[in-house]
Amino acid sequence: MGDGKISRRELLRLAGAGGAGLTLGAGGYAAIRGTADAAAVPGSSTVPFFGRNQGGIATTQQEHMHFAALDLITDDAAEVRDLFRAWTEAGARMAQGDPAGDENYSQFLPPEDTGEAFDLHPANLTLTFGIGPSIFEKDGEDSLGLAGTKPEALAPLPPLTGDVLDEARSDGDLCVQACADDPQVAFHAVRNLVRIARGIAVVRWSQLGFGRTASTSKTQSTPRNLMGLKDGTNNIKSEDTDLMGRFVWVPDGEGPSWMAGGTYLVARRIRMLIEVWDRVSLSEQETSIGRHKYSGAPIGKENEFAPVDLSAKDENGEPLIAEDAHVRLARQNEDERILRRGYSFTDGFDAERGQLDAGLFFISFQRDPLRQFVPLQQRLAANDRLNEYIRHTASALFAIPPGPREGGYVGEDLFRGI
Amino acid sequence: MGDGKISRRELLRLAGAGGAGLTLGAGGYAAIRGTADAAAVPGSSTVPFFGRNQGGIATTQQEHMHFAALDLITDDAAEVRDLFRAWTEAGARMAQGDPAGDENYSQFLPPEDTGEAFDLHPANLTLTFGIGPSIFEKDGEDSLGLAGTKPEALAPLPPLTGDVLDEARSDGDLCVQACADDPQVAFHAVRNLVRIARGIAVVRWSQLGFGRTASTSKTQSTPRNLMGLKDGTNNIKSEDTDLMGRFVWVPDGEGPSWMAGGTYLVARRIRMLIEVWDRVSLSEQETSIGRHKYSGAPIGKENEFAPVDLSAKDENGEPLIAEDAHVRLARQNEDERILRRGYSFTDGFDAERGQLDAGLFFISFQRDPLRQFVPLQQRLAANDRLNEYIRHTASALFAIPPGPREGGYVGEDLFRGI
Repeated sequence: MGDGKISRRELLRLAGAGGAGLTLGAGGYAAIRGTADAAAVPGSSTVPFFGRNQGGIATTQQEHMHFAALDLITDDAAEVRDLFRAWTEAGARMAQGDPAGDENYSQFLPPEDTGEAFDLHPANLTLTFGIGPSIFEKDGEDSLGLAGTKPEALAPLPPLTGDVLDEARSDGDLCVQACADDPQVAFHAVRNLVRIARGIAVVRWSQLGFGRTASTSKTQSTPRNLMGLKDGTNNIKSEDTDLMGRFVWVPDGEGPSWMAGGTYLVARRIRMLIEVWDRVSLSEQETSIGRHKYSGAPIGKENEFAPVDLSAKDENGEPLIAEDAHVRLARQNEDERILRRGYSFTDGFDAERGQLDAGLFFISFQRDPLRQFVPLQQRLAANDRLNEYIRHTASALFAIPPGPREGGYVGEDLFRGI
Repeated sequence: MGDGKISRRELLRLAGAGGAGLTLGAGGYAAIRGTADAAAVPGSSTVPFFGRNQGGIATTQQEHMHFAALDLITDDAAEVRDLFRAWTEAGARMAQGDPAGDENYSQFLPPEDTGEAFDLHPANLTLTFGIGPSIFEKDGEDSLGLAGTKPEALAPLPPLTGDVLDEARSDGDLCVQACADDPQVAFHAVRNLVRIARGIAVVRWSQLGFGRTASTSKTQSTPRNLMGLKDGTNNIKSEDTDLMGRFVWVPDGEGPSWMAGGTYLVARRIRMLIEVWDRVSLSEQETSIGRHKYSGAPIGKENEFAPVDLSAKDENGEPLIAEDAHVRLARQNEDERILRRGYSFTDGFDAERGQLDAGLFFISFQRDPLRQFVPLQQRLAANDRLNEYIRHTASALFAIPPGPREGGYVGEDLFRGI
């Protein structure tokens, strides 16, 4: 231990020595993680960190999210590149259930990992790193010298009807989306990545999410959002590889080469006016969404997955699905499909309004936000009957580079020339 | 459906009709809850709602918490009594995995349940209802006419050294602690109870917690808090019925009769100065707590559960456990033991400090806060080496009445004379 480092094997020994109930097995920190209650830790499985695409997009959606947006405090692109290198290394470790860095027992050095996930399963942790429009131009300056590589698709979102955006909770130079089936695993990942960024970037805002509000795999059931409605019935599923290619992944030759295999992330903090919603009738709730509340089926149908027939009429010749129903407006144009992957949130109590501050942290992934998310949301913002019950309170857009190759790092092709 | 009501059986039919993958079984809403992913929903088991003690105290600690404090907006004690009756009825239903009230399909009435937990397991939901000192006297007035029944043990906590309390996040006339192994189940319970309180009480503050920071059963392993430290190794466990009787439950004849079988809840929002903690050496971290970080064993020992020997010396004759170590100060007096049941929290990013707003939402249950929590915390507040890394930012105290009998309601003996 003369160099202040301790091997993983030695840590295992030390941990095992204290270990009522420890189950030691094959190598890696994951091997000492048999202590937590099986019922409380949904899984010891992992999601691959390296590959063509980053995790946390098409991979099966987990139950918990911690999202952080950061602002750079450097104008040296080499430092940003080194940050992505360090994030990639730590992220690959944590996705395996290992600590962010090797431990040490120095009298003088802080631990390389903050420790709160030592006994927890990997819980399918995924980390999704993103790059905001502002790293290419901020206050009219291209301080990193990267403006020449900016994708057209990363143009800042235009103002959208009805937006009441809190700038302090919006945008950001970089982002990290951590998703896991254990919230402490997601928190731990963000905290250690933020720590690694010290001196290069600082947190601008962060958001905790629980209870996924979409499914990204046909193996998952449709969850309910905090309006009590099934959400994301017609979401693109990762098994739909044709749709993923058409609507989510940036193909080779579209935009700068560093984005091939990547995608774009839109985040919208949508506050629900829960107390208002809870006072309106079931009928009004169902009319607003265009689906039955309990079954999730389109109005007039019985099966959640029944096709939405926008032309169906009732016995009086009125449309079964109202002209301003969410499901009608959200489905008008088959060119605007997006992959949703949001979470419910509550940030306590809003003293100003005297109401719970809760809603949906909407996340979507798409090949081109300006051609998919923006026209879709403009139409919803103008006419959606649900608007009476929601407010978009924050917004952010990030380019999500392709997944790192083993031995490489996220964003490698962007920073290659530096 | 002429009266706008729908039977549970009918709801089952309606839900079943839309049900790809529904597994219908024996009666109750719980029967339609087979849709969520088994891996993501830790359990379909329930905790009894009725009995000598309320749940959420000695019952096995769950992984998630939503806590709300409310203030009364009535001075009619009968309305408060009726609220506890309604809360008891809804609470008993939700603890079984049922909605808060019977559903209806009226065109004009809102649903009796907000719906976001329809497809979820009961997830061991417990609800713990409490009564704050202020219902007996507020601004010098005894507006409810209950002052004669106030327990001496419910005296407001005295100012404690180092407190930096946010009044808006402290105290409250009433409280609800909802704990479950699914955060959406806990959120749903609080939201529906708050809704039922409309016109009688409004939320004063609320707090979301994840990752239990204590164990209340010998069947559970010791979790880690956000300092990365095992927390609550020497907590009282529910199996220690002698200790529970001595330190937690109010016995017959101690204070007013309505509290027999009850206890007192102290909540402290303890913010951790995470960025500071993360920069100090492992040695300083271990010295501060008086335990080894990885194993949780007392300094110089190898087993987490090894007795803490406060007199042990190192080779130089210095105490192995520092004079200001947390574990030394927290254990000096065996008359001050408490049952801990706290959670980790993060409330996003604190723009003022530029740091994560995260820490420990400490909850303890004890027979008499003034003889247990207060002297213990005074000693810690004055000398604990951990103080450099934490701030107590909110505080609350509630009397927790005994559990309701079947057919009765929480607080029945307090409100009997009204």
